[in-house]
Amino acid sequence: MTTRRTRLSPEERRTQLLDLGAHLFATRSVEEISIDVLAEEAGVSRGLLYHYFGNKSDFREAVIRHAVEDLVAQTAPPAEGEPVERLLASLGVYVDYVLANLTLYRSLVRAAAGGTDEVLALYEEGRAALTDRIFREDAQGEILVDTPRTRLVVRGWSAMTEEMVLSWAEDPAGMTREELLGVLALSLPALVELTP
Amino acid sequence: MTTRRTRLSPEERRTQLLDLGAHLFATRSVEEISIDVLAEEAGVSRGLLYHYFGNKSDFREAVIRHAVEDLVAQTAPPAEGEPVERLLASLGVYVDYVLANLTLYRSLVRAAAGGTDEVLALYEEGRAALTDRIFREDAQGEILVDTPRTRLVVRGWSAMTEEMVLSWAEDPAGMTREELLGVLALSLPALVELTP
Repeated sequence: MTTRRTRLSPEERRTQLLDLGAHLFATRSVEEISIDVLAEEAGVSRGLLYHYFGNKSDFREAVIRHAVEDLVAQTAPPAEGEPVERLLASLGVYVDYVLANLTLYRSLVRAAAGGTDEVLALYEEGRAALTDRIFREDAQGEILVDTPRTRLVVRGWSAMTEEMVLSWAEDPAGMTREELLGVLALSLPALVELTP
Repeated sequence: MTTRRTRLSPEERRTQLLDLGAHLFATRSVEEISIDVLAEEAGVSRGLLYHYFGNKSDFREAVIRHAVEDLVAQTAPPAEGEPVERLLASLGVYVDYVLANLTLYRSLVRAAAGGTDEVLALYEEGRAALTDRIFREDAQGEILVDTPRTRLVVRGWSAMTEEMVLSWAEDPAGMTREELLGVLALSLPALVELTP
């Protein structure tokens, strides 16, 4: 083993700082995330953080954007398989992500609804990315065809999924992870079926 | 016609002031609701408002509570009919209420998610009242039986309904009011059907 310090590129260093920032969510709400808090908790110099992120609100937004992109990337469905199976796999990662990052996720949802326009915009971007992917991954229209009506239904289904996963994480209501995933994955085609 | 002024009881007067307060939502967010604003816009004396409501945050909470109770009362389903028909009737009033009070409703949802614990508690109380009523009105279990699992599903369905109605009010996506109501009313039994 060498003890040589790894030299990071500016981009890698920035990503590392954003990862550290995202971890602050474990115990703090969005409003409490700041350069000063990260400097103190992670032992990073304030000067370095200001160098990378400019100011407090830019830093907070960069951390949230990083967390949202991470969620979208992690929940990418597998390349192969039937549409419903791939939706199920993607939902499984989503549920595990929410469980592993419950404070971050609840804090983001809360901040998005009641927070600044910038935070709301980041949250909506993340939601749009997840929604677009459902239509893109199902280009043959096996689950749903891309119309304004099915877009409205997918929006409702997303809100239901978010609410059910957050509620289930706090109180499983006697439902196993697999049963929850089954209800969520099957409900999307069922809802589309009901749409005129 | 007489020109005699009607003498209101203290309770009627208080309700009248809360109605006036709720109307402020038409152009203002929850945070902007205050005794001073109501006094100025409705030409009511500040002294009278402080007499009835104590302080600013008590006044804001009383206005929100009044709006939530009004929504719950207005959306009471008809006493007679099949469970799905009564759900449909109740949903119809809900959709019309959201359309007629769009700023108030959006502001309430936003304030509940990102606001103080008191506002969140009022919003949750309203939601619980609507949810409990679904189970109470369907005591024979024709649509759903009251279990922790169906409670979780109804919570998800409520979030979906709220999201779809708010989105539809902004952009109907080619769906008529009746089509929207049909999707919402039929989706509840469909979701319960999928629940193991």
